[in-house]
Amino acid sequence: MASTRTPDPDSGWLSDEELAQVRRRLPILYVEAVPVRVDGQGVVTEVGALLRVNPAGSITRTLVSGRVMYGETLRDALYRHLEKDLGPMAFPQLPASPVPFSVAEYFPFPSPTRFDDDRQHAVALAFVVPVTGTCDPRQDALELTWLTPEEAASDRVSNEMEGGRGALLRTALASVGVLP
Amino acid sequence: MASTRTPDPDSGWLSDEELAQVRRRLPILYVEAVPVRVDGQGVVTEVGALLRVNPAGSITRTLVSGRVMYGETLRDALYRHLEKDLGPMAFPQLPASPVPFSVAEYFPFPSPTRFDDDRQHAVALAFVVPVTGTCDPRQDALELTWLTPEEAASDRVSNEMEGGRGALLRTALASVGVLP
Amino acid sequence: MASTRTPDPDSGWLSDEELAQVRRRLPILYVEAVPVRVDGQGVVTEVGALLRVNPAGSITRTLVSGRVMYGETLRDALYRHLEKDLGPMAFPQLPASPVPFSVAEYFPFPSPTRFDDDRQHAVALAFVVPVTGTCDPRQDALELTWLTPEEAASDRVSNEMEGGRGALLRTALASVGVLP
Amino acid sequence: MASTRTPDPDSGWLSDEELAQVRRRLPILYVEAVPVRVDGQGVVTEVGALLRVNPAGSITRTLVSGRVMYGETLRDALYRHLEKDLGPMAFPQLPASPVPFSVAEYFPFPSPTRFDDDRQHAVALAFVVPVTGTCDPRQDALELTWLTPEEAASDRVSNEMEGGRGALLRTALASVGVLP
Repeated sequence: MASTRTPDPDSGWLSDEELAQVRRRLPILYVEAVPVRVDGQGVVTEVGALLRVNPAGSITRTLVSGRVMYGETLRDALYRHLEKDLGPMAFPQLPASPVPFSVAEYFPFPSPTRFDDDRQHAVALAFVVPVTGTCDPRQDALELTWLTPEEAASDRVSNEMEGGRGALLRTALASVGVLP
Repeated sequence: MASTRTPDPDSGWLSDEELAQVRRRLPILYVEAVPVRVDGQGVVTEVGALLRVNPAGSITRTLVSGRVMYGETLRDALYRHLEKDLGPMAFPQLPASPVPFSVAEYFPFPSPTRFDDDRQHAVALAFVVPVTGTCDPRQDALELTWLTPEEAASDRVSNEMEGGRGALLRTALASVGVLP
Repeated sequence: MASTRTPDPDSGWLSDEELAQVRRRLPILYVEAVPVRVDGQGVVTEVGALLRVNPAGSITRTLVSGRVMYGETLRDALYRHLEKDLGPMAFPQLPASPVPFSVAEYFPFPSPTRFDDDRQHAVALAFVVPVTGTCDPRQDALELTWLTPEEAASDRVSNEMEGGRGALLRTALASVGVLP
Repeated sequence: MASTRTPDPDSGWLSDEELAQVRRRLPILYVEAVPVRVDGQGVVTEVGALLRVNPAGSITRTLVSGRVMYGETLRDALYRHLEKDLGPMAFPQLPASPVPFSVAEYFPFPSPTRFDDDRQHAVALAFVVPVTGTCDPRQDALELTWLTPEEAASDRVSNEMEGGRGALLRTALASVGVLP
């Protein structure tokens, strides 16, 4: 149908071209999630990282991450991206607090922060999210790997994380009291 | 047995007399918990407060609260007091983060803070704890009442809370983004 | 000059028309600040609110607030809006932590949150910022009023705040331990 | 004078012997501070660590740390220990928020946490504190060293920190967004 190709200008959905333009004009709001396993007392025992093939063909690690759409609450966006990246049976437990453990600012030019993204200026609110079910990544993610806090904080894993997210992953570990 | 009346001086357990003495010498470490119900996206929908008869015979409201024992982790103490006050089927979900939403300082003399306790100088680390099961208060608590965030923040409820905990309860609501 | 009317499409600056379009398509990232006075021990003693005439002609209260521009860090945006709203001699002390005390989500339609904004879907990272100098509001702000924590938390002040920001102001008080 | 040897039992001060006894019976409340230098926008540029000779004669690093006394607020305790360890001209800026960036639990036996202290079970509320003046350590501290965030997070510095405080120092860096 033609109408699906001509989105309502008020719809909140952007064509690829429009999105490309906006990405050079405005900071884009993202949510990111660090999936974790916790024990019966809430202590984080494992941390999930996604393995995927980046556009250059090499394998890298990343976190659950995605845009917040027009009209969407942060919780809806978090939930949607967790389901997209971990599958429908992950049963994420979104935190009661709306305050992120950190805010990551990604820049497409030499970055004044620890984070970069050559596509855009993105600002990501990052959350630690316990998952209790079975994770079955879809889409472009190849695999979800569970790491111990020690592995997740290691230089090796940190260097494999896209866009400087190794620092974000370590900050997540610190926020839940398990950074070595 | 005599031995139960003569506790090992290194045991970490204090007789009533010893505890009374220490309470005039040292700040005593407490944990407090605000039990909450959350919806499928983690939004707090109800807040629990305990109704009980205070030593003066009047009915007041309070939070889950208790001392941290020698050798006990904060999580163990939280879990123990949640079970004591809410029963064994409450299934509390302790937060992944060890950082309290606030720290309440109670003083036995005209208090420089919003909180008072005529027995002691106590410092309480306060946490919001989602519970998913059935709460069945034991001991001196008469009843657990579930309140909406609006009710919990009201002046009426605030005035019924012991030791100034109305301010702590409102601070809990603020920390999870539902303070009116 | 013609050049000021024909902004570089990659410049990160949007014409009024473009901004109006984008505001119906994407959540817009804001920073907000609650200016405070602190005593020698860091305790918040006064809270600043801006009085201004809103487009409808009535007088309302608001917080320091503004958009994050393309390529701008959150700290740069905070600093710029604090200077715009409080003048160049306010000497704000930006917090060391990049984590906001709360995140406010404003929606232009019946809002699932406590906050609304009929112009746009905006997501604001909110910070408490001690100021040590002299505040001299410029632009559309008429006056900066200093309130005690009790006044700032009152229903009267809360009802005068734009877009539901009374709840945000109370949450700010809670985050610094002075909510009544 | 005899009176100095017979402290008022209600005084809140403990003799060395009494303190030694209490330390085997109750968790002892501490405050800890990570002194930092910040730039004009609040970004942490340097982190202070104290070099000192430990009882075994070797040189180790530690943080500003000390007990909270009976009747003392956390802010008073923080201020007192900062002055004791950094001298009277350090001009520390205590944070407006009473919430610590982390809570460190030290145990005298094989510890269930990352932290240990062979004297006692101590629970420390830890804060990042910008200092704007000149630091001149007194008492048993030999020297205050300013480190870059990268140095402070390094394995070398971490291994020199007493009681596992390397993890606490890294957590402090994470809380202010400068953990590498």
